[in-house]
Amino acid sequence: MRIGVLGAGQLGRMLALAGYPLAKTFVFYDMSGSPSAGLGEVIIDREGEYLDDFLSRVDRVTYEFEHLPVSVAEAIARVKPVYPSPRSLQVCQNRESEKTLFGQLGIPTPEWRIADSAESLQQAARELGCPVVAKSNTEGYDGKGQAVLRAPEEATAAWESIGHQRLIVEKFVNFSREVSIIAVRSIDGDVAFYPITENTHHEGILRYSVAPAPKLSAATTADAERYIRALLNELDYVGVLTLELFETPDGLVANEMAPRVHNSGHWTIEGAGTSQFENHIRAVSGHALGNVSPRGVSCMINIIGEHGDIERILELPYAHVHLYNKGERPGRKLGHVTILADSYEELVWRVRNCASFLPGAPEFSCSLTRG
Amino acid sequence: MRIGVLGAGQLGRMLALAGYPLAKTFVFYDMSGSPSAGLGEVIIDREGEYLDDFLSRVDRVTYEFEHLPVSVAEAIARVKPVYPSPRSLQVCQNRESEKTLFGQLGIPTPEWRIADSAESLQQAARELGCPVVAKSNTEGYDGKGQAVLRAPEEATAAWESIGHQRLIVEKFVNFSREVSIIAVRSIDGDVAFYPITENTHHEGILRYSVAPAPKLSAATTADAERYIRALLNELDYVGVLTLELFETPDGLVANEMAPRVHNSGHWTIEGAGTSQFENHIRAVSGHALGNVSPRGVSCMINIIGEHGDIERILELPYAHVHLYNKGERPGRKLGHVTILADSYEELVWRVRNCASFLPGAPEFSCSLTRG
Repeated sequence: MRIGVLGAGQLGRMLALAGYPLAKTFVFYDMSGSPSAGLGEVIIDREGEYLDDFLSRVDRVTYEFEHLPVSVAEAIARVKPVYPSPRSLQVCQNRESEKTLFGQLGIPTPEWRIADSAESLQQAARELGCPVVAKSNTEGYDGKGQAVLRAPEEATAAWESIGHQRLIVEKFVNFSREVSIIAVRSIDGDVAFYPITENTHHEGILRYSVAPAPKLSAATTADAERYIRALLNELDYVGVLTLELFETPDGLVANEMAPRVHNSGHWTIEGAGTSQFENHIRAVSGHALGNVSPRGVSCMINIIGEHGDIERILELPYAHVHLYNKGERPGRKLGHVTILADSYEELVWRVRNCASFLPGAPEFSCSLTRG
Repeated sequence: MRIGVLGAGQLGRMLALAGYPLAKTFVFYDMSGSPSAGLGEVIIDREGEYLDDFLSRVDRVTYEFEHLPVSVAEAIARVKPVYPSPRSLQVCQNRESEKTLFGQLGIPTPEWRIADSAESLQQAARELGCPVVAKSNTEGYDGKGQAVLRAPEEATAAWESIGHQRLIVEKFVNFSREVSIIAVRSIDGDVAFYPITENTHHEGILRYSVAPAPKLSAATTADAERYIRALLNELDYVGVLTLELFETPDGLVANEMAPRVHNSGHWTIEGAGTSQFENHIRAVSGHALGNVSPRGVSCMINIIGEHGDIERILELPYAHVHLYNKGERPGRKLGHVTILADSYEELVWRVRNCASFLPGAPEFSCSLTRG
């Protein structure tokens, strides 16, 4: 089976590495002009001229990147099976649609308003009560296209700095930590949930993911699974879906979802029975889902901006190095390291030791280190 | 770093899958005309015309297949670093050189003679005492080019059936089981040993490998490690080396070695901290060696000749499927499944269940099932 992947970055690379052992081959369709998958066949098509050629070479299509025009995904779906469906893409690209769907399915979100001018942004900030977070309604990821308003009077400056015509304005959530749940749904409708992951961001970029998230109540896990199951079923979703959540004293609050494998699931390559990448390939190919149970405890550390002392990290017996073969650039995801351990105590020590060889890494901080 | 691989079969495929995450790229040099690696760049060169082209595209060279002319390896070594060295290849291609080296290093072997005619074969059989095993001195693997003589009078028929000009004749070893040890040596001379594996063959082809080999004494393990360390150091070896051994009431007896990753080490992909493939890439690239400790107990089942019911195997939560994307043909290695468990009891049950979906698989038999 030949799988077409829309996008050609490191997520596509890891999908292919997981898919070859299942006898899949890969063709990537890159619209950025700078593919980095580094294996499989890559079609670079900045002008959209070679889509037919791409489609003639594949049996079904998936994506590793959700910021492509829904019209393109819909055109593809008329020719070849596309998993997950273009509707999933459409919902995830539009924060208003996403939040509306969350509300319909009973998934708690921060209180929110739409703003289409500096004036309405100020009005929204006043109604919600500051601080609020304003985000472009479409596009934007890794913290881009966002601003925090500490007072309604900051609306004009925020409106100008974001530079979009339609914003979603959210009441600030006083969360204790950020977590994510990754689930996978098969063509037959089977669903499997990975353990919830605790995520630490720095400068808007994910830095550390600890899995299974420590100190998580069974009730909270059940909530997260119920929420993502509702989304999977509502969207008749096939493949891996990620839901980012805030943990608050009043329970979980949904932040956003991603219709794909996710950075907070990279630990599954060594830390789970079946990786998120293999499970996505299994799902879109029509196979049974693989085992999502954890193997010990894991922490993924992103390598951001510069590689650091990889040779020293390769000497650590508990570290698994994944490089994306990309050039160094501030803020760029260059790779990740997964640290495995048998206990959280051991994990903290090992993560700190590994991070000491990554000059760009912020100090390891999560619920484990806060005592 | 661009790694050139001589040969382009499933071993090369798995080397590449392990090497991409370390930011290596791969160019395969195929002399068979039927490469199956399925990823990386493949240069097919049945006439030996494109070797210079291949060498211009790579930084260093290794192999996944040892049956290529030593003269080719030597020519390559004059242009680019080759690991392991051509001498390792030369020794492994010639059973007489191999057995002589074993003897020099104090590694026990079956008693052996050289035969260069039907008459000398008969004489050797008489001297050693039947049964004896006659093997072509060069070439031959997976049980090809071999014959068992139950009486010296069978020499003429055996000589003709093998059809080689120089044979090695070995006294039959009364072994309790076959095991192998896989070790890796870095450019700096560091050595790491994987746990010894117990191997079961059927019709001359490896079918099952259980690791760590059950019921193995510490003294036997120490012997195997001493033997392979002596080989690694003598050959100034860089990369993964495999030594196949017979376990007998009088201790271990060496059968043969392979200067490469080995089918009996495929379990390391999920069953060890670092796979044999990653460790080979680490070694030939000049990195530190990875952790060779086992993760639970494992059994690798080869998929031979026909694929069987892969969909059912994908449903087993403890099975890891690796397909080589090759067409079915009797006796052909099409893939393997690694079964993981926390105990040998559980392992046996799981292996039997998995094997029931592989019509070509012989009944699971090893020291665990013999009680």
